[in-house]
Amino acid sequence: MSFTPFQSLVLQNDTKIVLLVLDGVGDLPHPEHGHATPLEAARTPNLDAIAPRAALGRLLPVAPGITPGSGPGHLALFGYDPVETQVGRGVLEALGAGIELGPGDVAARANFCTVDGSGVVTDRRAGRIPSETCARLVRLLTEKIPRVEDIEFRLQAGKGHRFVAVLHGMGLDDGVSDADPHKEGHPIPLAEPTGLRPGSKRTADMVNQFVAEARRVLANEHPANAAMLRGISARPNLPGFHKRFGLQGAAIAAYPMYRGVAQLAGMSVHAVGETPEESFAKAAELWKVNDFFFIHAKATDMAGEDGNFDAKVAAIETVDRALPRLLETKPDVLCITGDHSTPVAIKGHSWHPVPVLVLAPYAGADQAPRFHEKTARTGSLSTLASRDLMAILLANAGRLDKFGA
Amino acid sequence: MSFTPFQSLVLQNDTKIVLLVLDGVGDLPHPEHGHATPLEAARTPNLDAIAPRAALGRLLPVAPGITPGSGPGHLALFGYDPVETQVGRGVLEALGAGIELGPGDVAARANFCTVDGSGVVTDRRAGRIPSETCARLVRLLTEKIPRVEDIEFRLQAGKGHRFVAVLHGMGLDDGVSDADPHKEGHPIPLAEPTGLRPGSKRTADMVNQFVAEARRVLANEHPANAAMLRGISARPNLPGFHKRFGLQGAAIAAYPMYRGVAQLAGMSVHAVGETPEESFAKAAELWKVNDFFFIHAKATDMAGEDGNFDAKVAAIETVDRALPRLLETKPDVLCITGDHSTPVAIKGHSWHPVPVLVLAPYAGADQAPRFHEKTARTGSLSTLASRDLMAILLANAGRLDKFGA
Repeated sequence: MSFTPFQSLVLQNDTKIVLLVLDGVGDLPHPEHGHATPLEAARTPNLDAIAPRAALGRLLPVAPGITPGSGPGHLALFGYDPVETQVGRGVLEALGAGIELGPGDVAARANFCTVDGSGVVTDRRAGRIPSETCARLVRLLTEKIPRVEDIEFRLQAGKGHRFVAVLHGMGLDDGVSDADPHKEGHPIPLAEPTGLRPGSKRTADMVNQFVAEARRVLANEHPANAAMLRGISARPNLPGFHKRFGLQGAAIAAYPMYRGVAQLAGMSVHAVGETPEESFAKAAELWKVNDFFFIHAKATDMAGEDGNFDAKVAAIETVDRALPRLLETKPDVLCITGDHSTPVAIKGHSWHPVPVLVLAPYAGADQAPRFHEKTARTGSLSTLASRDLMAILLANAGRLDKFGA
Repeated sequence: MSFTPFQSLVLQNDTKIVLLVLDGVGDLPHPEHGHATPLEAARTPNLDAIAPRAALGRLLPVAPGITPGSGPGHLALFGYDPVETQVGRGVLEALGAGIELGPGDVAARANFCTVDGSGVVTDRRAGRIPSETCARLVRLLTEKIPRVEDIEFRLQAGKGHRFVAVLHGMGLDDGVSDADPHKEGHPIPLAEPTGLRPGSKRTADMVNQFVAEARRVLANEHPANAAMLRGISARPNLPGFHKRFGLQGAAIAAYPMYRGVAQLAGMSVHAVGETPEESFAKAAELWKVNDFFFIHAKATDMAGEDGNFDAKVAAIETVDRALPRLLETKPDVLCITGDHSTPVAIKGHSWHPVPVLVLAPYAGADQAPRFHEKTARTGSLSTLASRDLMAILLANAGRLDKFGA
């Protein structure tokens, strides 16, 4: 029951909103830790001090039962419908690699692979070549195939056999199938346009020429003697934060992926180191010229992915220790939540709702003793779609007018 | 906030999911029983043993304030949108009568009635003739009007003046108005196509010829000297359980209506007696060749309809006593819920949310002491649309891939 056309209700004032995202913070009661969740087990005196004065609740990133990737998880927090606003795999990979994408750019995930004499893929990962080999081969391709016709191919090496390819030029589009058989024993298929957009046909042609050219360039290499492209996708042109919410948004994140998604949403992006102190200091530095601060903390998610309860607790405690620095800036609205849950027991993203805290003069004080999954369950915000969070934050900032008379 | 296209995320594995539906189990605190609900008042040691390890919540079958019939109640549990996926009255009546409907079949509810010399209906129920008379008249019509043109009319007698008519043949469709004035003092109207589908016109013609023919055949009977058809509806062609969820579904139910609805959803159907023991033994027997088991228990609903608190408590206790038999099969995901509430005080279906329990390794252990309406209210599953339950069950079974990167 989202209210999509709330753009028309947006007001301007000089309030400041902070959205602090502890990536993957949501968790499950852990049987080996007294059925506590990491948020519950962590010593968080600073969070505990604000929890009673805040409104608590839970966010559903996409829908019940659906486990989100980082892209949909963040786009929903930024107020986009994560199902309607799908960002392609190639684009997310490029953003994660710290490549800036312009309007019209098309990105693809790429693999070095091994093909036999007849062109059949015998190893999709080319024996998982070392990253140094990958970097060398990417340099080789960059030198030999800087462009196909008038389309520039910008390559960036990743880990092992992986790299990213960004096509830059006029008249490109997505809607192009993968130049990747997705299994061994088949030749690399031609990329094909999947729709009728003229740019798709042209993009497929460029991809196919690149793949063919790469095979010639790599013919004498071993074991990586070919390259494949998949997840071919165009940078989406989303209506940005300023247009939708009247906000100057600043994204503060150590990892390129999160800066990239924020950039798609029209925020300015600011790279920082991994400590919360540094992020919060950066927010203070940017305070005057922005209205909205998305601050991303990654360590909670990594600990969850590692199945490391103690590390997740420690990551939460590290944020808590730095929290006074953020509170000093006196945000009018402070929201602390996650983009999804990453339960320690699951060692991966999950579908479970994510606790959310909103501290603002009129948010309502739930008087919960602490902020964690169990207090959030009965909080006054109830269980909301993540995409509705922005309306709650704008309302608490006095930035949403009444609907109707 | 359902995520409709989750079909694309479905994974295959060898997990087993059990959906145990206690029909109409949801209830209200009863003032004459210490404000306990039947689930609360029942002695349920086996449910109590699993409740703390399970995630609890509540299901809304259709929408707030909407009281569902059995059709929508179950279709929603099976993951269909109960508003978009409407099954006609005639089809539900036929399914309830245990008639198998094939694709293209059209079913109608039918009444014997009394008409005067000018064709005006003077008693829509023909004085509520005894069921034996109804059966005799149905045999008579079957003998005299086995078909209209090339359309076969398959009739089955019901209680009193009621019977079911199934039209079987090529080119039929629904979108046909009732051949029933719905009140006395009017002639039986002609069935009319309500849309432009050619099959609707043809079906209306067949119905009208049948009604006219029946009037001639029954002219000398008294008081039932005519027949009327309403709720004319085609068997819907729903995408089935296997196609949508990659599941081989088995429905185990004593009553034909529930087997019928499950069959519409693409499950294999298995008739059993009314005891939960028998149903659970049947599930064990079918265990290896199925992934999903819908087990229906009817007694809770009947007790609710009768306004009999003690009978509803007893029905719940009967299921509880048999529960160890079901737990022995070791389902990976066990869900216990209802298709709707049937409060004792209301003596009928109601709009109240239905408690739901999900027991699975990563469902989250809410540590609720017991499973009933009051603990369900603050459970970690929150209040969900019934149609979203399947996504929760698939997620818990590890059968849903991540959405987006």
